[in-house]
Amino acid sequence: MATQSLPRENAISELSSFLGERLTTSIAVREQHGNGECGVYTPQPPDAVVFPCGTEEVSQIVRICTDHGVPMIPYGTGTSVEGNVTAPHGGICIDLSEMNEVVRVNEEDLDCTVQAGVTRKQLNQYLKDTGLFFPIDPGADASLGGMAATRASGTNAVRYGTLRENVLGLTAVLPDGKIIKTGGRARKSSAGYDLTRLLVGSEGTLGIITEVTLRLYGIPEAISAAMCSFPDLESAVNTVILTIQSGIPVARMELLDDVQMDACMRYSKLDYSRDHTILFEFHGTERGVQEQAKMVGEISRDLGGSDFRWAKTTEERNALWQSRHDVLYACFALRPGSMVWATDVCVPISRLAECLLETKRDIDENGLLAPIVGHAGDGNFHVGFVLEPGNEEELAMAKEVNDKMIERTLGMGGTCTGEHGIGVGKIGYMEAEHGESVEVMRMIKRSIDPQNLMNPGKIFAS
Amino acid sequence: MATQSLPRENAISELSSFLGERLTTSIAVREQHGNGECGVYTPQPPDAVVFPCGTEEVSQIVRICTDHGVPMIPYGTGTSVEGNVTAPHGGICIDLSEMNEVVRVNEEDLDCTVQAGVTRKQLNQYLKDTGLFFPIDPGADASLGGMAATRASGTNAVRYGTLRENVLGLTAVLPDGKIIKTGGRARKSSAGYDLTRLLVGSEGTLGIITEVTLRLYGIPEAISAAMCSFPDLESAVNTVILTIQSGIPVARMELLDDVQMDACMRYSKLDYSRDHTILFEFHGTERGVQEQAKMVGEISRDLGGSDFRWAKTTEERNALWQSRHDVLYACFALRPGSMVWATDVCVPISRLAECLLETKRDIDENGLLAPIVGHAGDGNFHVGFVLEPGNEEELAMAKEVNDKMIERTLGMGGTCTGEHGIGVGKIGYMEAEHGESVEVMRMIKRSIDPQNLMNPGKIFAS
Repeated sequence: MATQSLPRENAISELSSFLGERLTTSIAVREQHGNGECGVYTPQPPDAVVFPCGTEEVSQIVRICTDHGVPMIPYGTGTSVEGNVTAPHGGICIDLSEMNEVVRVNEEDLDCTVQAGVTRKQLNQYLKDTGLFFPIDPGADASLGGMAATRASGTNAVRYGTLRENVLGLTAVLPDGKIIKTGGRARKSSAGYDLTRLLVGSEGTLGIITEVTLRLYGIPEAISAAMCSFPDLESAVNTVILTIQSGIPVARMELLDDVQMDACMRYSKLDYSRDHTILFEFHGTERGVQEQAKMVGEISRDLGGSDFRWAKTTEERNALWQSRHDVLYACFALRPGSMVWATDVCVPISRLAECLLETKRDIDENGLLAPIVGHAGDGNFHVGFVLEPGNEEELAMAKEVNDKMIERTLGMGGTCTGEHGIGVGKIGYMEAEHGESVEVMRMIKRSIDPQNLMNPGKIFAS
Repeated sequence: MATQSLPRENAISELSSFLGERLTTSIAVREQHGNGECGVYTPQPPDAVVFPCGTEEVSQIVRICTDHGVPMIPYGTGTSVEGNVTAPHGGICIDLSEMNEVVRVNEEDLDCTVQAGVTRKQLNQYLKDTGLFFPIDPGADASLGGMAATRASGTNAVRYGTLRENVLGLTAVLPDGKIIKTGGRARKSSAGYDLTRLLVGSEGTLGIITEVTLRLYGIPEAISAAMCSFPDLESAVNTVILTIQSGIPVARMELLDDVQMDACMRYSKLDYSRDHTILFEFHGTERGVQEQAKMVGEISRDLGGSDFRWAKTTEERNALWQSRHDVLYACFALRPGSMVWATDVCVPISRLAECLLETKRDIDENGLLAPIVGHAGDGNFHVGFVLEPGNEEELAMAKEVNDKMIERTLGMGGTCTGEHGIGVGKIGYMEAEHGESVEVMRMIKRSIDPQNLMNPGKIFAS
C-alpha cells in the first residue's frame, strides 16, 4: 500500500492545486460516490472526488491521473445498479454533475448537445417550450452521460430505441487526455468506424464521455395511457408478445407482476388492481392512438385481460407512471430495512413467457420476495430481490436464482443485461454470453487504455 | 516484387490444395473482382479469387493468408462505388457469393440469420410467405454481408434505419482466423462493447463478416406510393424538410432533380413529369397511410407541389421504384460510352436545401452533367457525375465540385458519405471529418489487424 499511496497523494495534490474546492477527500462524499443504488455490491470509495466544469478540465484531470498511474471513475448521478461506479482500486472519481449545461438545441434538426451531467428530466424541462422531447426514460433521473455510458433504455425504448439508437455523437476524453469528437449531426454516415457506439455502453472503461449529441422527437399530437390487468402472468406476457408481433407501435408496454403491483399500489396509495398488469402508453395522431388502443384492446381481451382503465388527464398519466418509476422504493417499503438487488435480462420476445414464468417459479420455490417488472415489449425484465441485509443464506438463494435466470436467458439467445450494464455484478457472465468476442473487447481496451486506468475492474475482471 | 511473390504463390498453392476449383487465378475473374461499380477508381485485381462455402472455410483461408502475410479483400456482389473492393496491394479476394443460405428465420421474433452472400432480394423472396420483410434497400441487389460491412442504407432508411440499426449480431472471422459471434437475438443489451456496430461499417478492414442476424418487419397492412413534382428544387427540398420536422413517418421520400427525372423517364420510358420530383411511399394501417398522405399533401401543396400522382397497383408501384433504382443505368444512357462517378454526402436536414442548391449551382457553372438523387428524408443525397472516359479536364472539374460539396457538408455538421463508405475514394476526407478520432480508429485497426492484411488501403491510407 505504501508504494501505491505516493502517486495518489501526488496526483491529488496536483489536482487540488487547480481545482481548489472542487476536489474533496471528505469521507462522506467519497463513500457516497463509491456506491450505486444497489446494496449487494460492497461500496468501494475512491481516494478523492473531483467536480470538473468542462471538457478541457476533464482532460487536464485525466492527464494528471494518467501521469501518476491513478485510476479514474466517471460518475453521473450514481443511479447505476451493477456496481458500475465503485472504486475497487481506489483512484479519482470524476463527478460530472457540474457539467450540466444544455449546449445547443437544433429544433429544426430534432437534435441537441448536452454536457454529460445534464439529467433527462432537466433536458425535458429545458425543451418544454419547443414541442420536442427526449423519450428515453430509465426511471431514475439519470445523467445523459451516464445513460450513454451504460447504454441505458427503460420505458419507451420499445418505440424509440435505446441510447444506442439515440446518440448521434459524443465528446470524450481518452486516457491520454486527448479530446475526441465522434459521430456528428447527420442522421446516418458510412465514414469509418462507429466510435460513438463503441463508447456508448463502454461504462467509462475506454474514456470519459463529456458531451452527448442526442436525437429529439416531436411531442406526439396525442398521448394516452391505460392499464389492463390479467388473471395470470402468462396471459399478460402473451399479450405483450402478440402486440409486438403484430407490429403495433406502442410507446410503452410495462409489465408488473402481482407482487410488484401490490408493492406499487401500497407505496403510491393508488387503488388500481393488484393483479398482474400491463401499463400501456400510445403515441401518435388522435386517430392513430385510438387505432393502436383498439388493436391492443382486442388482443388483451382475447387473452382474458380486463377492460382498459384509462389515465385520461396528464396528471393521472403522471401518477400512473410515477407509481411505475417508484418500483425500487416500493420494493424497499415492502420490507422495512431491506436492501434491493435489481437485476435484469433480455430475451427474444418469443421466449419471454417461458423465461419469466420459470424465473417466477424459482423465486416462489425459494420463498424469496422478488417483484418482477419488465420493459416487456423489448423482451427485457427486472427482478428486484428484496433482501435482509446480512442474511447470507437468503443472498445465496437469490444469487442462485439469478444465475439460473441468466443461464436460461443465454440459452434462449438473450443477454445477461438489457440495460443495467456489466459493472462488477455481471463480469462472470461475459464469457458465457460472448465467448471469444470478450478477447476482442479486451484487445480494444488494451489498445486505448494500456495502463487500465479507466474504471478498472468493470466489464472485465482485473 | 520478386520478394513479395513467393509468399503469395505459396499461399495460393496452399489454398488451392483444399479449395480446388473454388480458387481461380483467371485474369477475367480477377479483373472483375478488382473493381466496383464506379469507373473513376483504377481497377486493381487481386492475385486470386476464392469462393468459400462456409464460415469454417473462411477461417481456414484467413489463417493461411495471415501465415503468409498476404492481404485479403472480402467481396459480396461488387456493387460498392468507392473502390471498396479493389486490391491495391494484391492478395486474395474472398468472394462470399456461394455462402448464400438463409440460416434461420424466427417469425415470432421478427429476425433472421443469413450467410453473408445472401442478397436482399433473395432474402425478401425467401420471406414472401411469412408476412415479413427486410426493408433496407440500397437500390442494387447487394449482399447482406456487404451491406453490413458498408453500413448501407438507401430508400426506406428514413423510417426503418440503416444497417446500423437493423443488424442484431454478426459472425465474423478475425485476421488470426478466429471466429467470433457478436451481439445476439435480444432487441437490446448492455453487456460489454458493441462489437456488432464496430464491425458494421468497417468495410472488411477488421475481419470478414460471414453471417448476419437481421431485424425483420411485418409487411404493412397498407402501402401506397405517389409522386409529386415541383417547379423548383428549393420547394421540393423544403417539402422534405417540413415533412421530417413534422414527424410524419414516411417510409420513403426520394428526391430527384430535373436532370435525374429526365434521365429516368427516358430510360424507363415512363411518362411522368420531368420536373424536380419527390417519390413518396407510405406504410401503415389503411387509415394511417391516408392520414400521412393527407398531411404530406398539405405541406407540398403549400410549397407549390403538383397534385399527387398515385401508383395504385403493386405493378405501378414497382415500375415507379424500378425507375428510381435504375438511376445509374439511366445516367449511363444519358451519354453513351460514359462512366458515372456516384458520390454521396449527408447533412442535418435543416441544411439540406442549402447544401443541395449550392452543389447544383457548382455543377451547372462547370457545365457538368450530374443528376442529383437523394434519400432526402435522411439529409442524404447523391451526385452522379456522368463523365467521358479519359477526359481529364472534365474529371478534374468533377473532383473540384465533389471537394467543395464535401467541404460544405462538413461545415454543416454533415458527413462525407451517408451510405457508400470510405473505400479508397474518401480517405482524404477522414481527418477533416473526424480529427483526432481517426487515430483512435487506427489504434483499433492495429490492435485487431496488426499486420494490416484485412482490406488494406481502405478507410485509411497505407
